[in-house]
Amino acid sequence: MATEIDFKALTAHAKENGFIYQSSEIYDGLAAAYDYGPNGVLLKNNLKEYWWRSMVQLNDNIVGIDASIFMHPKTWKASGHVDAFNDPLIDNKDSKKRFRADVLIEEHMDKIEGKINKEIAKAKKRFGDDFDEAQFRATNPNVQRYLTEHDAIAKRLATAMTEGNMAELKQIIEDLGISEPDTGSKNWTEVRQFNLMFSTQLGNIAGEEGKLYLRPETAQGIFVNFTNVQKTTRQKLPFGIAQIGKAFRNEIVARQFIFRMREFEQMEMQFFIQPGTQQEWYEKWKEARLKWHLALHPQSKLRFHDHDNLAHYADAAVDIQFEFPFGFKELEGIHSRTDFDLGAHQELSGKKLQYFDPETKESYVPYVVETSIGADRLFLATLTHALRDEQVPGQDDPNNTRTVLSLHPALAPIKAAIMPLKRNDERLVNMARDIFNDLRFRFEVQYDDTGSIGKLYRRQDAVGTPFCITVDFDSLEDNTVTVRDRDTLQQVRVKIDELAGMIGPKVDMGALLRSAQ
Amino acid sequence: MATEIDFKALTAHAKENGFIYQSSEIYDGLAAAYDYGPNGVLLKNNLKEYWWRSMVQLNDNIVGIDASIFMHPKTWKASGHVDAFNDPLIDNKDSKKRFRADVLIEEHMDKIEGKINKEIAKAKKRFGDDFDEAQFRATNPNVQRYLTEHDAIAKRLATAMTEGNMAELKQIIEDLGISEPDTGSKNWTEVRQFNLMFSTQLGNIAGEEGKLYLRPETAQGIFVNFTNVQKTTRQKLPFGIAQIGKAFRNEIVARQFIFRMREFEQMEMQFFIQPGTQQEWYEKWKEARLKWHLALHPQSKLRFHDHDNLAHYADAAVDIQFEFPFGFKELEGIHSRTDFDLGAHQELSGKKLQYFDPETKESYVPYVVETSIGADRLFLATLTHALRDEQVPGQDDPNNTRTVLSLHPALAPIKAAIMPLKRNDERLVNMARDIFNDLRFRFEVQYDDTGSIGKLYRRQDAVGTPFCITVDFDSLEDNTVTVRDRDTLQQVRVKIDELAGMIGPKVDMGALLRSAQ
Repeated sequence: MATEIDFKALTAHAKENGFIYQSSEIYDGLAAAYDYGPNGVLLKNNLKEYWWRSMVQLNDNIVGIDASIFMHPKTWKASGHVDAFNDPLIDNKDSKKRFRADVLIEEHMDKIEGKINKEIAKAKKRFGDDFDEAQFRATNPNVQRYLTEHDAIAKRLATAMTEGNMAELKQIIEDLGISEPDTGSKNWTEVRQFNLMFSTQLGNIAGEEGKLYLRPETAQGIFVNFTNVQKTTRQKLPFGIAQIGKAFRNEIVARQFIFRMREFEQMEMQFFIQPGTQQEWYEKWKEARLKWHLALHPQSKLRFHDHDNLAHYADAAVDIQFEFPFGFKELEGIHSRTDFDLGAHQELSGKKLQYFDPETKESYVPYVVETSIGADRLFLATLTHALRDEQVPGQDDPNNTRTVLSLHPALAPIKAAIMPLKRNDERLVNMARDIFNDLRFRFEVQYDDTGSIGKLYRRQDAVGTPFCITVDFDSLEDNTVTVRDRDTLQQVRVKIDELAGMIGPKVDMGALLRSAQ
Repeated sequence: MATEIDFKALTAHAKENGFIYQSSEIYDGLAAAYDYGPNGVLLKNNLKEYWWRSMVQLNDNIVGIDASIFMHPKTWKASGHVDAFNDPLIDNKDSKKRFRADVLIEEHMDKIEGKINKEIAKAKKRFGDDFDEAQFRATNPNVQRYLTEHDAIAKRLATAMTEGNMAELKQIIEDLGISEPDTGSKNWTEVRQFNLMFSTQLGNIAGEEGKLYLRPETAQGIFVNFTNVQKTTRQKLPFGIAQIGKAFRNEIVARQFIFRMREFEQMEMQFFIQPGTQQEWYEKWKEARLKWHLALHPQSKLRFHDHDNLAHYADAAVDIQFEFPFGFKELEGIHSRTDFDLGAHQELSGKKLQYFDPETKESYVPYVVETSIGADRLFLATLTHALRDEQVPGQDDPNNTRTVLSLHPALAPIKAAIMPLKRNDERLVNMARDIFNDLRFRFEVQYDDTGSIGKLYRRQDAVGTPFCITVDFDSLEDNTVTVRDRDTLQQVRVKIDELAGMIGPKVDMGALLRSAQ
């Protein structure tokens, strides 16, 4: 029986095994910023490579770019981020702490839901098997009162957010008597709009003119380059542009480990299509992206979730959600963005962002279907799914357990660990070193003689190494070694000069790419 | 005869062939920012992979990390960047433009040098073969006057810069009567220190407390993680930590295409060693890094250049310079950084950044030898060296020329292009497509039927594709194709099911890694 590890144990495992450290830990950390350690960076690079090759290498009509984080500030005017990428913030005058007004109200609503659940739990206990929850919800006067209260707040909140009515948000907070969570103070400032873009200042241009933003999404780097890319690659519609890169959002509430960070990495692909075909391509990309995830995770961990409210640029939008330890949450978004972005850039720049269709002899602004995934969230999803405590395979004793990271071999940070049976035997050490020195030109391997073989096996299990190669005294006689499989624990004898040929194809990214087809 | 392409032609080639575009070009560009296009991002990724595998994969005692760009602001206090990472700036009150005071003075000195060179050129013309330049410089009264003037300014400038004396810099500008280059105005402000770090503000913390910097170098992300990495990887000294990532400097004078940008990518490796061994490791890394470059470029393009002035953290420092189109300039730096950084972080954080030596049973702050290379500069060096106009090999006519990008096959953006001899023959197209569909799981390939074979060859030459595969009518009979070599132009017939085995090993990164050993 294998069980997934809980969230706290997962973050501890990630730190102790060199996957993820708190950023600037020696200075007591920088909130919501994390660093990838030696195993983390290898796993993350492999995940990025899996995405990149799936997009750019496998598809003849998708090309890549790498645009700079700094872009001309007009970019963010056209995209709508300068005017509409805001959170409503409120400061508590006593504690000097800053909060999202909408989140304060939502947390108040969560408390009301808590009261409802308490009533239900009480009733369940009382009525036992006969309890009909739906009927109880519909008839119990206490529950009815809470529901009415909850729905009224929800309605006021939704209206205030849609209208951008900051005064009303403040009024709701006052009407509900919401207090500062830590101190209980109700001494609030007004609510004001706070733009989520980080800004900075160019040194050689004074004032507003020199104001730069850290990009809040990588997509715009693709849009502004549309014409350059289309012309230099001679691509015909439909075609896509893919990009991996950092983006930055000045979130007030950043939390859940690497799930929501202020600095994060996106993998976005903008697929440019003929207007009118967006529904078809939206469905195709939904299907293709789900298939891609299914090569990593079982169907039960994944689900589609349609957006309730569409962003100003979209005519259809869906999330692929993954079941994280804290519930089903967005892992990837697929958005039908229409011609909003290209059209807005065309208007503001005065430069044509159009495609000349050689068949219809017409020029038009293409429509766009986007797939957008967070590399850090994918990393977290991968760890969540792969990390487990399990009874050691092939052993009867249920107390004989191990912690193993069951990564696809193509994703594993280390493909094979090479160990001499005894570290003080020069012949074994030299032979193991020779194997390391050969295999290192092919894939990531590790030479390890820092413990007993059993201990080293457990360590390699914990970081997901699919193969352990042990050099023993028989090796000196017959040039064979023991290769131990991480998942089955089966051991086979392999000739040294056949190691690369045996392990190579299994840890190759091509194997994972084919499995997602 | 092959000739290197000049700088202007190189930048034009880079744009037209999808290597590098001006950032935000539709908004008339963002100064000193560039975007990597479809071929550019592939080449850059390959260069980064070459560095990464050389460091992390080949060396058992070097591990990687990927630290976030945002770090705790105390990091930059400890490193010295808050107090000492400044440029002296001066504004012209009339033109409202901002200049580096030291650069204005240096440009004035350049003019004096220009006068000296003019005198020498005149004399050379007059005296012909008999001209002895050294003697002329030592005796000509005009030259002597200029030299005295030049040296006096150089001395004042050096003293003012060392002392951080901004008033003296202003005084020099006034004494020399330096005017604004474009307008001639001498209406200057005072000179003031301007920190080169970009700063921004965290949303949930008001004022100075929430001030964040964009890292001006990746190295500090390695230093603050020293203990975490050492403990979780159980590495023993000497060992290294390698990292690739973006860094940002608010340069006033950013120029020379991608050579000096405000946003750039560093590949840094910090090698932690026992104090006292730094000279030995400094020499070893100098040699190793030069060897690495020699796998890409000939010795004549590379040279060592010792630093004239050592930074506050260094006890030895050397650049590996590359001959760019604008002269020999820094490509990589190797720096013996002593225990300056770890010591400073230990003092400010109060956390131990030490290594317990199991042999001597002592704890100490390790010394550091650093290798630091700019990925963008490496990209520019690679283009500079690889791009050439040449007479077509094997042809007699010197006017029959081509433009070719002679990249190492492991670095080439596209490894092979697959072309049907006729794009309107379904059998040829299908066969070419089948080959594409097989090879794409192994390496980056392109299907291309957008022109005549001759035209397609030239296009692939221009982006450095080492192999072109042509499917012709014989292919339908005998399942062989023509493989054309980019450099020799030789064509061989190869069985389709032997293509991967023939091309794969040549374009594999392992081939380049081995050649640098």
